Amino acid sequence: MIKVVIIGFGNVGSHLSQICAATEGIKVLQVYTRSVPNTTTTTPFLIHDLKDISTAADIYIAAVPDDKINDITAKLPFANKLVVHTSGGSDVASIHKKNRKGVFYPLQTFSKNKVVNFNNIPILVEAENKDDLGLLLELGHKISEKVQQINSKERAALHVAAVFVNNFVNELYHVSEDILKEQDLNFNLLLPLIKETALKMELLTPSLAQTGPAKRGDAKTIRKHQELLNKKQQSIYDLLTKSIQHRNQEDE
Amino acid sequence: MIKVVIIGFGNVGSHLSQICAATEGIKVLQVYTRSVPNTTTTTPFLIHDLKDISTAADIYIAAVPDDKINDITAKLPFANKLVVHTSGGSDVASIHKKNRKGVFYPLQTFSKNKVVNFNNIPILVEAENKDDLGLLLELGHKISEKVQQINSKERAALHVAAVFVNNFVNELYHVSEDILKEQDLNFNLLLPLIKETALKMELLTPSLAQTGPAKRGDAKTIRKHQELLNKKQQSIYDLLTKSIQHRNQEDE
Repeated sequence: MIKVVIIGFGNVGSHLSQICAATEGIKVLQVYTRSVPNTTTTTPFLIHDLKDISTAADIYIAAVPDDKINDITAKLPFANKLVVHTSGGSDVASIHKKNRKGVFYPLQTFSKNKVVNFNNIPILVEAENKDDLGLLLELGHKISEKVQQINSKERAALHVAAVFVNNFVNELYHVSEDILKEQDLNFNLLLPLIKETALKMELLTPSLAQTGPAKRGDAKTIRKHQELLNKKQQSIYDLLTKSIQHRNQEDE
Repeated sequence: MIKVVIIGFGNVGSHLSQICAATEGIKVLQVYTRSVPNTTTTTPFLIHDLKDISTAADIYIAAVPDDKINDITAKLPFANKLVVHTSGGSDVASIHKKNRKGVFYPLQTFSKNKVVNFNNIPILVEAENKDDLGLLLELGHKISEKVQQINSKERAALHVAAVFVNNFVNELYHVSEDILKEQDLNFNLLLPLIKETALKMELLTPSLAQTGPAKRGDAKTIRKHQELLNKKQQSIYDLLTKSIQHRNQEDE
């Protein structure tokens, strides 16, 4: 039985609390949140003051914003216990040094009120010593099939790559929504294409999946597209078209 | 019973042939392809010479590259029949004028050897007269639940929006694959995130779904990310970060 305390009840903290509470072999001793949350989730051991935190846990998971990791972990009223953060973008050293440090990074985007299946989510762990690493791997394996040790440099690369496939892809969705709105067309028309584009990655590499005017060097269609776009949309269109075409040249 | 001849056996033509042949109420009289295809698909009425084309069809569907639409439709040995193309990027006028012109545009990305479910695919139709429009809507409804009449201007907007959510999104996948390769990390680690980002669009707008350092104005993380990227990757990172941040300012 691995005993955990979860510190933070935002998107990551609330999902982690739920999956840990529901998983055999994990016991959630407490969940800390500063404010009383506006939620119907069952959280039997909610605490609102770090002074009330149990000292009996094997792992303390700080699921808090990057810039709060140091502050909050500095306020923990104990030392030499295993404290991990859940952030892709923060160094393990951002945890206050009085405790043993580690990372437990679930590589997924979490939204309130949307259930996610943890079984497929890569859990990327890091620790300062072998025992702690073993314990984090064990915790990860209880909730996911994909658990892997990576170092801070690898995690940083994963985090920036995740920005490309999540935040930036979402921004492209937003731009296309803008384009359709100008013609009073519903963004829903694009949903099957959006879904298929993503699901293709399970079968094909990005290189093999690519199609379209930039890939086939169709200058006439590219010119027609540019004429339909405003200045901001055009700068994105031109840069990504150039990026695809640059690969074509590399292939030749 | 709607009788069709399909001209072209590439990605769109082969998928259309299969779904039309498998659908009650549609009869595929012939499928034209210049070369004998390297496929095991059952295509009982394959022809290789336009001189052999039946004059008994209600609709001739030219599923050929944009720059071939005019050439091939000019070679059809009949006049005043309904001839449509399947292209998002071409005007209806690209069909040779000796026949009645129309468009039958399935808004999806097609790959050889990957079955697609036509039921969800938006079919966007255009025709020059009411009877032809009615017939194209009827054909569309037989294979999909989402059939809609749009004009050439609306179709052009949809086509460029599709480039953003398909070709450009795929290029972002490619860039993130490059970033991971430098650290010997497997692109598969990103698949759950890629999938979730796309599926979120069924529940949330792009605006509500957005998260990450650009959205929350986290300059420190943005700087860290920039340092990890090469020049080409950084130019994409900077432009899309600016694009997201520009929206933040509009919201204020």
